[in-house]
Formats: sequence, structure tokens, C-alpha cells
Amino acid sequence: MTNLSQHPVDPDLLATRVGRFMSSLDKVGQRLGMRLDEIRPGYSRIAMPITAEMINGHNICHGGFTFALADTACAYACNSHNQNALSQALNIVFLTPGALGETLVAEARESARAGRTATYEIKVTAADGRVVAVAQAQCRAVSGQMIADESPPAKA
Amino acid sequence: MTNLSQHPVDPDLLATRVGRFMSSLDKVGQRLGMRLDEIRPGYSRIAMPITAEMINGHNICHGGFTFALADTACAYACNSHNQNALSQALNIVFLTPGALGETLVAEARESARAGRTATYEIKVTAADGRVVAVAQAQCRAVSGQMIADESPPAKA
Amino acid sequence: MTNLSQHPVDPDLLATRVGRFMSSLDKVGQRLGMRLDEIRPGYSRIAMPITAEMINGHNICHGGFTFALADTACAYACNSHNQNALSQALNIVFLTPGALGETLVAEARESARAGRTATYEIKVTAADGRVVAVAQAQCRAVSGQMIADESPPAKA
Amino acid sequence: MTNLSQHPVDPDLLATRVGRFMSSLDKVGQRLGMRLDEIRPGYSRIAMPITAEMINGHNICHGGFTFALADTACAYACNSHNQNALSQALNIVFLTPGALGETLVAEARESARAGRTATYEIKVTAADGRVVAVAQAQCRAVSGQMIADESPPAKA
Repeated sequence: MTNLSQHPVDPDLLATRVGRFMSSLDKVGQRLGMRLDEIRPGYSRIAMPITAEMINGHNICHGGFTFALADTACAYACNSHNQNALSQALNIVFLTPGALGETLVAEARESARAGRTATYEIKVTAADGRVVAVAQAQCRAVSGQMIADESPPAKA
Repeated sequence: MTNLSQHPVDPDLLATRVGRFMSSLDKVGQRLGMRLDEIRPGYSRIAMPITAEMINGHNICHGGFTFALADTACAYACNSHNQNALSQALNIVFLTPGALGETLVAEARESARAGRTATYEIKVTAADGRVVAVAQAQCRAVSGQMIADESPPAKA
Repeated sequence: MTNLSQHPVDPDLLATRVGRFMSSLDKVGQRLGMRLDEIRPGYSRIAMPITAEMINGHNICHGGFTFALADTACAYACNSHNQNALSQALNIVFLTPGALGETLVAEARESARAGRTATYEIKVTAADGRVVAVAQAQCRAVSGQMIADESPPAKA
Repeated sequence: MTNLSQHPVDPDLLATRVGRFMSSLDKVGQRLGMRLDEIRPGYSRIAMPITAEMINGHNICHGGFTFALADTACAYACNSHNQNALSQALNIVFLTPGALGETLVAEARESARAGRTATYEIKVTAADGRVVAVAQAQCRAVSGQMIADESPPAKA
């Protein structure tokens, strides 16, 4: 990457910066042990270990935490372009239960985009390859950016 | 309640017992400060204060906790008949953000039932009357009961 | 209803007028035999007979027509305030199949409203009372009105 | 492909046969001008021209027909394994309107599978590449097969 003024920022690098910034603010994700493993334009992958506090009366991971992981992956993916966006709606299908000690991985991928609306598919899997949940999210771009739209400094 | 043999168990009373039993096991709900305010056949109402640990980087309640509240209300409502049931899928639409210090209330109501499947509408509101989220859940009855199906003892 | 100038239009009457106007334009609904039975602010009820052309290879009503009925009921309900609105997303759960010769009835009810977004629950039932499908729709108000916002003529 | 007895049927060939069989029965799809362009295990692609009878009062394709196309693509994809399956629920997000004379193409892809449940993502696009709608479907395997599980005849 050059630092020529007016040079457009590399989208992958921009996504990485957005991810780092979001992680630093994401107190909920930090408390739940989430770890951002990858972020690219329209994509993110996040891991979360299932801890004792996430286990419900049926001895499986409470759906709220599976949802929180999927929703967080979606938030990173839909903000990865450095244009603020919010999830307006999310449909989640639970396929198999998560167990104590497993680490869940959520991958969010942009499916489509039209105007200010974009949709994402989020897949939550366990280490043995089974799918724990699949979600479809509808996100809407709002005003503002995650990080300042830095014009790279002009050459001396 | 009488203890006449063959007397059918009152559905409201049964729902109350199921609610009490589920609450005693619901470690996640307890940790999140949820309080079961009402349970009847096909219905439940649960309150949850928004605490500092639920606030995300945008200074609003993380969608995962709003979802956890809606999902929990659904779990109580769909198990209220004392027939074990699980939510298979849940579609949630976020309408307004929740703020620190507010208490959210989720009401889950059975919309329809056919065979082993039932659907629920769950509305999450704040004290000022605004709706924070609305969800539609699809639940499926599975084998087993929450509490033993007590045949009232026969008269001596 | 009076015809005093400045008198606000009665919401029920306005909804009735919107319904009549929409029906006159609704070529698809007409071809599918839909009949608007009731419209009030945030509510509509529409009937549709299942005809031979709606029957699929499994000898049941094709989900597309059940959806079309639910979506149409939602369109009437969400435009009943005479503020143009479109359904952005719709989640439908199919519970029982519809059969040739049955008349399906869809009722759409506003569940919540916040800013330009509103959600609707739509229930599709058959004459024997069983529920064929339940849907949740998310609608968005757009600019424009169905019918001109007539100020009633001043008294002579 | 050999015709040795006991030889397992090629999954791609089986999907093709299922598709041909379903098409022959699919009166609704035939009437709506749908054309099965491709079918493979867990995948289908179907085209449908937007005709005058699909245009609603706003001069755009009625959502019911977009849904019917998406739902039909899902039906082919989820039956492509020659194990009968039905869509139980479908969440559709409308992104851009379809216009008279356009041909819509729906692609359905299996996202996940667990036990008797599978989920599909269906994308409906127009010839200019824009996405008209995206859907997530939840399907359930039921007993029965589309076509007889033919053991190929033994060699003479």
C-alpha cells in the first residue's frame, strides 16, 4: 500500500482496522470470551467458548448466547466496509445443541446488497463440523463511520 | 385444588408449577436478572433489567440479551402445558434500542398450534411503552414433561 | 361523520376508502379470487378460495398462493393508515396444508410500530378452524399516500 | 454409469431424475412459466419470466410470485436427494422490485443439515445482476421418495 494522497484505502486493510476498533469497544464480546479470527469486506469469523455460565437447565448452551455470537459476527461483517450499519432483523434456525467446553465458530457472509439494505448468512459450527445454527440477517446502513476516513498523509 | 382421583389438573395451576420448576433450573435467566412475572397455558411474561454488562460499544443493549429475554419468554410459554418443547427457529425484528437502567418486559403468546409444532409471538417492551423488539418463534414438542404428571392420590 | 373543514378524517372510514381503492387496482388479487372482507387501521381480513390452478404435485395448495394471500392481507393492513408502505421481509411458517375447494382466510394485525417500521402478524386459517400458516412481516413506510388527503368541503 | 446390480446410484443422476419427475407434476410451475435449468444434490436453479398477470397495482411483480419462484427452487433442491422433504418455514427479504418482461432466476443452495432438518439459502436475481430477494428456508424430511429406488437391472 502506498501513502499517496487520494489513494483509495485498501478494503481489506480498512476492514482489519474496523475490526480492531470494534473489538476494543465490544465489552459484551470480551466478557463472553469472543475472539475475532478474521474480518474482510462483507465477512467475519468469530469464535466463542461455551462456558458454564452459558449452560441452561437442559445442560446445553442457551440459545441467547448462540444468537449473541451470530449477531456479533454479523455486526463485524456488516460494518467491515467502514459504513455504520445495524441489524434490523435476524432469523435463526437452531439445528444441534452446543455443549459445555465446545468452542463455537460463527462465520458471517454478505449474501446480497441493494441500496442501504444488505443481507447476511451466518453459520455457527462446532469443532466436530456439525452446524449448531444458521441465521439470516437483514442489515441497514446508517450515517457515520466506525473509524475516521483518513486521507493518508501526503508525501514529504 | 381437590385431590379427587381422575380430576384433571387445572391448566393454570399446572403452568404455574412448570414455571416455578423451570425458574429453579434457569441459571442463565437468574444470572441475567430475569424475573418470571406471569405464566399461563401458552403465555408468559418475563422482566429483565438492562445492566452495564449488557451494554455494547454503541451504548445500547446488545441484541443478544434482548434475544435471550424473548427466547426465554418463549421457552416458558411453550413449556407451560407441561409437554417438553424446544424453539427450533426464531425471527426477531429490532425496533428501538434498549438503554442502561431500563427494565425490558417480554410477553410470549401462542399464535397457532398444529401437531407437534406451535408458533409464538413475543413482544419486548420498555416501561415507557415503546416496543424494543418483536419476534416469531416456531417450537416443536418433544418427548418428556417438565414435572411429573401426578395422578392425584385416590381417596382413602 | 361531519363535513366540517379541518375535521380530521375518521381513521376507520379512511381505511375503508384505502381498501376500496387498493382492491380496484389489485389485478393479482382479483385473478386469484381474493375478497377483502374487512379493513380497519392496522388490520385486514381477506378470503381466497383454493382453486385447481393452485394445487401442486402433492395435491395440496402451493405455498406460493398461501404466501400471496398472507402478503396481500399484510399489504392492506399496512397501507390502511393511508401512508404508503411496503413489506420488506416476511417470515412464514406452514402448519397444515390447504386443500382444493377450501376457502382460506388471512387476518393481518399490526403488532408494533416504531418510526417508519411496523410489524404485522398474519394468520391464515381454513373454515374448519385449523391454522394453515402464520407469518410475521416487517413493513416500511415510504413517501406518498394511497388516496388524496381530501379536506372535506366546508359547510355552505 | 454402469448398470451393475447393487451399484449405488450416482447422486447427480438421481437429482436429475428427481427434477424431471417433479417438473412433470408441477402444474403450478408450468402455468407460471417456470423452467428448471439445473438440479444437483442440494442445489437447483429455476427461471421464471415476469408476465402481465404477475404485475400488481404498483406496476411491479407481486411478492407472491417472487416467493413462489423461491419456494419452488427450494422444493427442487431439498428433494434432490430423492428423500421427500417439505419446507416448514421460509423467511424472505425483498431487496429490489421485479419488472414486467424481466426473467427472474432463483438459485437454492443447501446451507446446513442436521437430522431431518436442512436449511437452504435462495437468491432471486434479475438479468442485470441485481438481487430481487433473498430467502432462508427450513425444510424437513418426511417419509417416501420422489422416484422408486430402482435397483438397476442385472446384466443378462
